Amino acid sequence: MQKPATTQVPIHDIIANRWSGRAYDADKAVSNDQIISLLEAARWAPSCFGDQPWRFLVWDKNQDAAAWQKAFDCIVPGNQTWAKDAPVLVLVCADTQFNHNQKPNRWGAYDTGAAAVSLCLQATSLGLMTHQMGGYDGDKARTAFNIPEQYQTMSMLSVGYAADVDTLEGEAKEREMSPRQRRPLGELFFNGEWNQPII
Amino acid sequence: MQKPATTQVPIHDIIANRWSGRAYDADKAVSNDQIISLLEAARWAPSCFGDQPWRFLVWDKNQDAAAWQKAFDCIVPGNQTWAKDAPVLVLVCADTQFNHNQKPNRWGAYDTGAAAVSLCLQATSLGLMTHQMGGYDGDKARTAFNIPEQYQTMSMLSVGYAADVDTLEGEAKEREMSPRQRRPLGELFFNGEWNQPII
Repeated sequence: MQKPATTQVPIHDIIANRWSGRAYDADKAVSNDQIISLLEAARWAPSCFGDQPWRFLVWDKNQDAAAWQKAFDCIVPGNQTWAKDAPVLVLVCADTQFNHNQKPNRWGAYDTGAAAVSLCLQATSLGLMTHQMGGYDGDKARTAFNIPEQYQTMSMLSVGYAADVDTLEGEAKEREMSPRQRRPLGELFFNGEWNQPII
Repeated sequence: MQKPATTQVPIHDIIANRWSGRAYDADKAVSNDQIISLLEAARWAPSCFGDQPWRFLVWDKNQDAAAWQKAFDCIVPGNQTWAKDAPVLVLVCADTQFNHNQKPNRWGAYDTGAAAVSLCLQATSLGLMTHQMGGYDGDKARTAFNIPEQYQTMSMLSVGYAADVDTLEGEAKEREMSPRQRRPLGELFFNGEWNQPII
């Protein structure tokens, strides 16, 4: 299923076509080279002082089903209904300190968000689908995977090939079929002064 | 000047070729359609609860030189030496609250980072160059452009066409010519357990 963004002027395909679907094909694995390419895309994101504050924990069901299950168990039930078919899960974490001086890094989450969406866009370019979830138990994940307090957990992210929407049921299916929406450009982007719509 | 990322497996061109250069062509304007396409790319970034917490203030020197100057005056001198030739400046801000309930949004900066890098990648796809700066006076910008306290300023971002590196001098030229570097994959990306290198 394709749900390209509706835009006033064209944008690049991989940006227009990235979307957070739910219908995953449980039978199609993501290859190791694909996983590395996703991480390379994240690795080359920009960051303040070149700090690279992101840390990603990766679980591939086809490499280690028990470890994947441990990550899956951290996801809230509402997301588990569809995330169960995603062969790869990634927990995205952000360093709260700068590496060069251990002082607080106010861009830790900001730069990590850039790295995560770079992974998602690279996935789109490979024909894969990603979905970032806020709905997971961060404390449970921290304990399960020994994540130091210095790092914030930001997002659990699923990766895999898309399946037919009919593999979903109930609310997940409804949400899969509803149109993608964004606020109008003028509410978010301003021309020179706060609240002055760009368009 | 092209400085593509060095990767173990290929990644998409617009991700590999995005880089934060400093040599801008002061004589080549960014068109209004190009600006809108950059903002559309940001607009379609993913966000927690679909909140879209990003707000961007945009200044185009060729539309309003005085307003652009006011933004430029917020940039620290070290960055002004090269940012002076960038025709477009963008101040990226993040909402600290969710729109639907006014509660704190712990993903405000994270999602805003995704929107900002989406703009940068769209710029690369149009042959434009971006550079995000942490080096600007956020308080000065807040006062100058009436930015409400509810929004954090995250990054000042330059947009324009690249110029020959010889248009730069001193440290900016040196940095422009030095190779791009990132930490090894295994320091940032872990296989199932914290600090277990993916590769």
